[in-house]
Amino acid sequence: MAAVEASPTPETRPYAVVLAGGGGTRLWPASRRLRPKQLLALGGNETLLGACLRRAWSVFGADHTLVVTASDQAAAIAEMFPNMGPANLVVEPSPRNTAAAIGLGAACVARRGGADAPIAVLPADAHVGDEARFAAALRAAVAAARAAIVTIGIPPSKPETGFGYIKVGKAIGEGLFDVARFVEKPDRPKAEEYLAAGDYLWNSGMFFFTAGRFLEEARRSLPELGAMLDEMLGSGDPEAVVQRRYNALPAISVDYAIMEKAAGIRVVPARFGWNDIGSWAAMDEMRDKDAQGNVAVGDVAVLDGGGNVVVSEQGAPFVGLVGVEDLVVVATRDAVLVVPKRRAQDVRQIVEALKTRGRAELL
Amino acid sequence: MAAVEASPTPETRPYAVVLAGGGGTRLWPASRRLRPKQLLALGGNETLLGACLRRAWSVFGADHTLVVTASDQAAAIAEMFPNMGPANLVVEPSPRNTAAAIGLGAACVARRGGADAPIAVLPADAHVGDEARFAAALRAAVAAARAAIVTIGIPPSKPETGFGYIKVGKAIGEGLFDVARFVEKPDRPKAEEYLAAGDYLWNSGMFFFTAGRFLEEARRSLPELGAMLDEMLGSGDPEAVVQRRYNALPAISVDYAIMEKAAGIRVVPARFGWNDIGSWAAMDEMRDKDAQGNVAVGDVAVLDGGGNVVVSEQGAPFVGLVGVEDLVVVATRDAVLVVPKRRAQDVRQIVEALKTRGRAELL
Repeated sequence: MAAVEASPTPETRPYAVVLAGGGGTRLWPASRRLRPKQLLALGGNETLLGACLRRAWSVFGADHTLVVTASDQAAAIAEMFPNMGPANLVVEPSPRNTAAAIGLGAACVARRGGADAPIAVLPADAHVGDEARFAAALRAAVAAARAAIVTIGIPPSKPETGFGYIKVGKAIGEGLFDVARFVEKPDRPKAEEYLAAGDYLWNSGMFFFTAGRFLEEARRSLPELGAMLDEMLGSGDPEAVVQRRYNALPAISVDYAIMEKAAGIRVVPARFGWNDIGSWAAMDEMRDKDAQGNVAVGDVAVLDGGGNVVVSEQGAPFVGLVGVEDLVVVATRDAVLVVPKRRAQDVRQIVEALKTRGRAELL
Repeated sequence: MAAVEASPTPETRPYAVVLAGGGGTRLWPASRRLRPKQLLALGGNETLLGACLRRAWSVFGADHTLVVTASDQAAAIAEMFPNMGPANLVVEPSPRNTAAAIGLGAACVARRGGADAPIAVLPADAHVGDEARFAAALRAAVAAARAAIVTIGIPPSKPETGFGYIKVGKAIGEGLFDVARFVEKPDRPKAEEYLAAGDYLWNSGMFFFTAGRFLEEARRSLPELGAMLDEMLGSGDPEAVVQRRYNALPAISVDYAIMEKAAGIRVVPARFGWNDIGSWAAMDEMRDKDAQGNVAVGDVAVLDGGGNVVVSEQGAPFVGLVGVEDLVVVATRDAVLVVPKRRAQDVRQIVEALKTRGRAELL
């Protein structure tokens, strides 16, 4: 890695930092410990991470796209994307949540591109419907990130309780607003209130800032992280610093540790068919439906029933449904899930039960 | 085979004729063309045919228990029951329904035991809860069969629409009644009426008569069958007669072709936990339930839901249900079925759809 330069060019080329370390059991039985959500091809033939990288590369270039991932997923990701340079795969020694993962990425960017380099933090596991509008939103957010921390907010289409929200403040410029405040995942009445109010956006989890700005915020709001990042930047062997210090960092989300404490955050509202696929129910919004409103993926048949999400993975058994409504049924080679669509989040109960029963081979 | 004797002993030892030729798709995906219902171990470790034979052997002896089956199942059955003599496995050249299958068995009994030998016709695919009471009912029915055609009727426990009914007539003796008439499978209001009336029994499909009496009835009511049976009895090579004539017989049920036209039929009412397992919903009545009323067989988990029938066959995926009620979920290695319990009969729709799609490997 090169030493940090303060301001290498008048308009430093931006970087993407893709967060691909999530485990995620909400898409069990397809998602597993060693095959997390971002490595699933839920939208068709392309994995979520593959689609995310394709989009990131088209805007930032493959050379300026870093992937931060967990140590147990790194080999699989390196194999899946051979055209990604090994230096662009940043490995967390252990999962320490998003604040630490983003810090790791920001330190790498700072060493390569300098403190002024803008960074786009992109969660790997989101689905994007309209890629042209998505790219335009990225460019707008990156431009604004040279002066402030920026996020992208999605105008809500329904009273979703699975996302955090952003209350929009005053307009700063064309398509750019102050963030009045971040709001935790609401209950249903609150979500309906936010939807009706019209000045709330879904928190996409995408953040934009310069490397230097993130380092400042980390020093102020999460000093353990700030100290590690400073040591990385001053060291001839930053990798050794990470190995020594990373596991001791607090495992805390960037929203909670940094964003909710930072001043002057701005938001770019943008609608591009975004979904973070928090559960199987989200398949409803990213796949075509049959005349009865069923989403059917793979070797499945749904007779005389509607509103179901039915998935049979490659190599899994044929799945046949008769006369059922609004169910999620997912089959892999070794496991089958059946849950009402409105309770898709409760797949966690099965995962917990399997842990309790020592069924590690299914996790 | 020996030639027919008119009356070899004062009290001829009875025979059982087990009907094991059924195909049956109502228990798909477990039941298949080459693995019909009677070869499934739905009740635990024992196949339905295995349990039927064990019960028949205990009453009639293995030497006096014939099995009539279809040509494509004969090899599997011979292999499963090596202690059954090959001469006791009677193979239909093609499936011609129960009248022809019973006729085949009756001709074999007539050649071996003479016209006076009583025959107990036992469908192979029924479940019996109380085997001692079942054996007692068999003995009572066999005793009465020396003088009349006899059936066993089951006092109904609910307004079942999947069975035929028997209206009971006047008492003939201790535990023996005239059959007033046979009634086809009723609709729900009719079934409730029969249940409330108290003088209707479920038609178990078990029939008892002497070989000679069946031959008489066949000659009168189904002459094509009577002619073939007479030719078998007069031939030195009855097997050749069967090969030449059987496929041309009308495919018709014994109820419709013979029983509904015969005079003086009697019925032995008996309650012994009988179920013909017409669909997965019947598993409800033959297996223990958990505290939430779920029947769970194999590697399955049902969380926060009740009244489900969940089956994972040996070698099939783990099946996890969360928050669903009154569903049937059955997994085999290559197929998964999901259907509401009250619509368990509609599994046929899936089977038909698979036929239409040319998916013979799943049938």
